[in-house]
Amino acid sequence: MKIALAQINTTVGDIRGNTKKIIDYIDAARKLNIDLVVFPELAICGYPPEDLLLKNNFIESNLHSLHDVVDKTENIAVILGFVDKDRDGIYNSAGVIQDKKLIGVYHKILLPNYGVFDEKRYFKEGKEVKVFEISGEKIGINICEDIWGNDIVKYDREKGAEIIINISASPYHYKKIKERENIISNKARNYNVPIFYCNLVGGQDELVFDGASMIFDKVGNLIGRAKQFEEDLLVYEDGVNCRIEKIPDEEEEIYKALVLGVRDYVFKNNFRKVVIGLSGGIDSSLTATIATDALGRKNVVGVFMPSKYTSDQSRIDAETLAHNLGIKFVTIPINSILQTYLIALDKEFAGIKRDIAEENLQARIRGNILMALSNKFGYLVLTTGNKSEISCGYATLYGDMAGGFAPLKDVPKTLVYRVAEWRNEINTVIPENVFIKAPTAELKENQKDEDTLPPYEILDRILYYYIEKDKSAEELISLGFEREIVLKVVSMVDRAEYKRRQSPPGIKITPKAFGKDRRMPITNKFAN
Amino acid sequence: MKIALAQINTTVGDIRGNTKKIIDYIDAARKLNIDLVVFPELAICGYPPEDLLLKNNFIESNLHSLHDVVDKTENIAVILGFVDKDRDGIYNSAGVIQDKKLIGVYHKILLPNYGVFDEKRYFKEGKEVKVFEISGEKIGINICEDIWGNDIVKYDREKGAEIIINISASPYHYKKIKERENIISNKARNYNVPIFYCNLVGGQDELVFDGASMIFDKVGNLIGRAKQFEEDLLVYEDGVNCRIEKIPDEEEEIYKALVLGVRDYVFKNNFRKVVIGLSGGIDSSLTATIATDALGRKNVVGVFMPSKYTSDQSRIDAETLAHNLGIKFVTIPINSILQTYLIALDKEFAGIKRDIAEENLQARIRGNILMALSNKFGYLVLTTGNKSEISCGYATLYGDMAGGFAPLKDVPKTLVYRVAEWRNEINTVIPENVFIKAPTAELKENQKDEDTLPPYEILDRILYYYIEKDKSAEELISLGFEREIVLKVVSMVDRAEYKRRQSPPGIKITPKAFGKDRRMPITNKFAN
Repeated sequence: MKIALAQINTTVGDIRGNTKKIIDYIDAARKLNIDLVVFPELAICGYPPEDLLLKNNFIESNLHSLHDVVDKTENIAVILGFVDKDRDGIYNSAGVIQDKKLIGVYHKILLPNYGVFDEKRYFKEGKEVKVFEISGEKIGINICEDIWGNDIVKYDREKGAEIIINISASPYHYKKIKERENIISNKARNYNVPIFYCNLVGGQDELVFDGASMIFDKVGNLIGRAKQFEEDLLVYEDGVNCRIEKIPDEEEEIYKALVLGVRDYVFKNNFRKVVIGLSGGIDSSLTATIATDALGRKNVVGVFMPSKYTSDQSRIDAETLAHNLGIKFVTIPINSILQTYLIALDKEFAGIKRDIAEENLQARIRGNILMALSNKFGYLVLTTGNKSEISCGYATLYGDMAGGFAPLKDVPKTLVYRVAEWRNEINTVIPENVFIKAPTAELKENQKDEDTLPPYEILDRILYYYIEKDKSAEELISLGFEREIVLKVVSMVDRAEYKRRQSPPGIKITPKAFGKDRRMPITNKFAN
Repeated sequence: MKIALAQINTTVGDIRGNTKKIIDYIDAARKLNIDLVVFPELAICGYPPEDLLLKNNFIESNLHSLHDVVDKTENIAVILGFVDKDRDGIYNSAGVIQDKKLIGVYHKILLPNYGVFDEKRYFKEGKEVKVFEISGEKIGINICEDIWGNDIVKYDREKGAEIIINISASPYHYKKIKERENIISNKARNYNVPIFYCNLVGGQDELVFDGASMIFDKVGNLIGRAKQFEEDLLVYEDGVNCRIEKIPDEEEEIYKALVLGVRDYVFKNNFRKVVIGLSGGIDSSLTATIATDALGRKNVVGVFMPSKYTSDQSRIDAETLAHNLGIKFVTIPINSILQTYLIALDKEFAGIKRDIAEENLQARIRGNILMALSNKFGYLVLTTGNKSEISCGYATLYGDMAGGFAPLKDVPKTLVYRVAEWRNEINTVIPENVFIKAPTAELKENQKDEDTLPPYEILDRILYYYIEKDKSAEELISLGFEREIVLKVVSMVDRAEYKRRQSPPGIKITPKAFGKDRRMPITNKFAN
């Protein structure tokens, strides 16, 4: 039996486009004499469809498209994800199709409802493990979470399954691929059964699905793996060595996740070009580099917006970066605009010394300029803030936080440097000086991030425990961090929730990102 | 037996403050010779605590406070909501306490996971209906959703319950009180049992809990009702007529929900004062009126920011409103600021005609001015956009959408007028002219909302069906709306999702609000 895992990049809601892609892959598979071609979870409607699932016409349209696929399966079998429906509700489902007949439907039993997942909001739980016979092989079919939890594979085996096929939409975060590999390998070995795992690929708002579909033999050895972060068709044939794509090191993997996330967000939302405020710092430099790799240099515009606090070195670094990337570079000074604001506010601000209000005004003028360019030319604005900043609220709402997408939103500052270093190894695009100089917002004289924040090496470790591990302040102190710093950081994180609620979406690359992954109340008097 | 429903206003995370309030009410009840005093769902930690529930120290702190309450129950019985914990997980629970002993714990069985609710994200389901004997009475206890679903009251009765007590945190939307009354009245009548329903009161981010706790006799008659939108202690005694507070008409009820929502958001987030951009239009007029009623006139600042497109009449209307309300009124013209932006952008914009970019710049300058005042003086900025605008994206991101809280976010424009008219009946604060003139953003010459949007009477009906009822475009057309208008509105709503994702929270007053209530993907190619 010849099985192909068709790891496709779907778009949420694009039922017609996804269906066309599925049919194209079926045709391609048929030409390769494939017996069975497998598509990811909810391939027809895209994942996660969120509240589109509450629309009856969305469900009907997806069912209609399932039957379009059925009609295109002459001489081939297909397993694919769709939304099934009965009188009780809707189901996250796998359709099993052979030679123009829908021979069965499996309903996902284990519905994840944690982290970024809300499947119990929409779906009824499946009640029955199912094994189908396709070309004489007994195949147990399950969906994503089903294989992470207990017992489904065991019941598949008890029902006679000789092969397990799992269709997934498993979002990326760093080290996740190893988790998946361990889980599935153990299931294969424990139940003495080969497992074919077909994962989604592509970006969808905050999520990137990384593909890397896998095949394990019945003793748990990895015997096949598709590409990560790309569409791929992984073909398996008995007795023939299957392809095993290499998995890159962590920095490269994260970089590729960010590139795919940016590309899909921009293009799937019908934008072509992006505009980025370049400050000469590491965050905007890496953001522009990712954007250039994702979209091509002609689709990226860098805007340098100096104030009187901007150093010459910042201009040199920003301009050098733009030159190295080959992107358009525009300079728009903000001093005169700031002056007119200060004149307009003069009466109200009279006698009060300069403070954060004037600092934020500069950031907001820059935000306005980028948005004006966005409105005029149809660019999407990419923001440049990293996870450390957004955690602490060290960012200006409607200022540097203004934009449609925030590529580094889930990348802590220390990791920004590591990823940028990795990228520079390919070719030096980010000027060396950007790595060396102390981070600064340049919103007042001689300002440095460390005037306000602890050193990033310490800050990022505190944030890791506080945000990703939900440790309390006392637990952090007992881990050896200084009490004063811990209390300061925890308080900054809690107070910045209102800012995060208004920040653009970014790409999840850690086990716990902001956004749908971490749902904190704004009104919150809990003393951590 | 003398029972009191203590409908208190808790704050999420303020475990110490909530506990102190609970103990104060217990003391007050004891002085009234109450036998049993009942508090709302999750009274100790506030509702909904969201991802605070994932923090172990949050759960421990709440358990610790439960025992503080237990110690204060000499000669009285108490039922109250808290988070219980066992080796399997955590439970949305009711503690039953009598005379310094925790005599039992009930775990909520039906966990809502739709609309604004995510209880399956956190809680394990309770497995057992429970009936407790308190002062010789057999009392079946359940929690919120338990009484909306089937069978729990039936099982309570089968277990011998002679009284049912339900503790709730039921969020407000218009007409909801009637739904609750019908549901509970039917349960009482069907199972021939009196029901005591204790609801939470207060604002929490997007939600307002309206209180209006109720008592039904065993044939389903309403025999007691607490105040709506206020803390209250409703006392019931056998053979004594109980108080039944009146429920206001819809406009008044909505107005009060908005006032409570604003007051609690502002004060619970440690602000004292708010600042509002006054345009002379109905939205900012109503927002300022609500804020003044919620916070007091000394805590509201109105800022009028004219451009060359601003009419004299707008200034007169804004100034008259501020005068009528007795709030501070500041004028900050934006023309000169706009000019410096246009000069700075001159090179980039050369040869391109004026469009939405210049319009949005004006709105964003105003946003920046309000935020500068916020940063300088610690004011919270209230935005003034209504649900019709935010639905269609007829609002400027980082412009008129800039602010910490959006009181009218869930109020359609036609309802804005109705609510404002109701408020003006008390005393005329909003100038009559504001009701008469055509709505305009005044961002270009002779601009009217209806240049871009259908008439609000039609728009609001389309939005009702499309957003609250999830009807498709075709269904809307078959209801009699013009195809062209339907397709335009539906497309505007879908394309504005990215703006809504970055909008401040507002107060839910309809069955489906934006925010946690309606979770649409941004990247979405579904053709409705």
